[in-house]
Amino acid sequence: MIPEDHPRYRSLVVRERLARCAQEGIVALEGLTAHGRGEAFDYLIGEETSPGALRAERIAAALLLSAEHAVISVNGNTAALAAGLIAGLQEASGAAVEVNLFHRTSERMAKITRLLEDHDVRVLSGVPERLLPLPHDRALCLRAGIGSADVVLVPLEDGDRCQALCGMGKKVIAIDLNPLSRTARSADLTIVDELTRAIPATTRFCHELDRTEAGALSEGFDNREFLQEAIRAIIWRLEHALD
Amino acid sequence: MIPEDHPRYRSLVVRERLARCAQEGIVALEGLTAHGRGEAFDYLIGEETSPGALRAERIAAALLLSAEHAVISVNGNTAALAAGLIAGLQEASGAAVEVNLFHRTSERMAKITRLLEDHDVRVLSGVPERLLPLPHDRALCLRAGIGSADVVLVPLEDGDRCQALCGMGKKVIAIDLNPLSRTARSADLTIVDELTRAIPATTRFCHELDRTEAGALSEGFDNREFLQEAIRAIIWRLEHALD
Repeated sequence: MIPEDHPRYRSLVVRERLARCAQEGIVALEGLTAHGRGEAFDYLIGEETSPGALRAERIAAALLLSAEHAVISVNGNTAALAAGLIAGLQEASGAAVEVNLFHRTSERMAKITRLLEDHDVRVLSGVPERLLPLPHDRALCLRAGIGSADVVLVPLEDGDRCQALCGMGKKVIAIDLNPLSRTARSADLTIVDELTRAIPATTRFCHELDRTEAGALSEGFDNREFLQEAIRAIIWRLEHALD
Repeated sequence: MIPEDHPRYRSLVVRERLARCAQEGIVALEGLTAHGRGEAFDYLIGEETSPGALRAERIAAALLLSAEHAVISVNGNTAALAAGLIAGLQEASGAAVEVNLFHRTSERMAKITRLLEDHDVRVLSGVPERLLPLPHDRALCLRAGIGSADVVLVPLEDGDRCQALCGMGKKVIAIDLNPLSRTARSADLTIVDELTRAIPATTRFCHELDRTEAGALSEGFDNREFLQEAIRAIIWRLEHALD
């Protein structure tokens, strides 16, 4: 047991949950490494939601609300860290949820679907087709889901897939702690924030915004500004690191 | 299978190797997350050896060559990533190699020892004793190894253990990609470079330096300079990231 007053309590609990999910086959072992990378960037941004990230979360809510057919793409890490939070966002935004895995096996698909459904997420099902311009199984998605979505929220997504979705003309919202990643740079909107802070914040904005505000907000933002702001925050922290 | 044209191919292959070693019980699940943190910092330093890191590697070689009794402390991640490279450094430096694990079980000790020996590393054996001022099994090391070493090279070491070794008056050389970590700050010399670049570079300097040069180099360096240089390199990269 991790003592609740441990200064790294939250981070240690999360790491323990991910390790347990890896043993259960929900999180890929590669997902643990990806989480570590995220941890490093979260440390560098100060482990809190920056004002810029909060603005991006508000616009993300606006994009989800204004979409014809919004889809939240969920992978193993996202399910392990935020199944219940995804249910809340689905409820608030009306978006569909599709399971989409980099390390795709039917067993993992089933386990992750079950975990999400246990948290009251309504998960799209159907026969996946090769709809994305990517090799092998990574092209797979549902025609009624990501295949026909106009807005896709990709938390913790691989750069290739993010770019492929953008190339298909979809509006892509990424949640990525690394403001330099290909995902962060290629997405239409990047929330540089930790998943379990980003999802509830976006959910809250979905509840707050009305249709008119959402429509206005979803036009005319510059993602570069969000990335630059995140980078400046990291630089500031580094500059003061050895004081 | 990872497609060979994936822009992050090398990084994905390394991650896959670590995942395989985790399945075999060589790498701890916590080691996968730790690797991810390192990956993030390597990304930020540009995934190449900086001039500062190269100077540190030269001094590391000098320290190993000038030592009475140098020991390379090897953990699961180090063995998984660099068993063959450790053999080369042992050959060039004359250092002893001791297996030292944070998540220590006799099964993991045996597996890692076997992996190293398969790569022609001569691994110290014997009955471990509680010689480090740390709780539980983390105090364990060999009297004929780390216990009596004057110089210890700790690649990818935990902050507590690094500090404990320093506190025992040993000269500690750390290899750590995070210039802000406790390990990086407490070591006598920190190589801020990726393991599989740092070890061969240090090995090369072991071959190049003669005794007199090694003696001169091993005095009068300032580790703070190396850390500050690494932090400045990261800041520089971040400042130019969105140009």
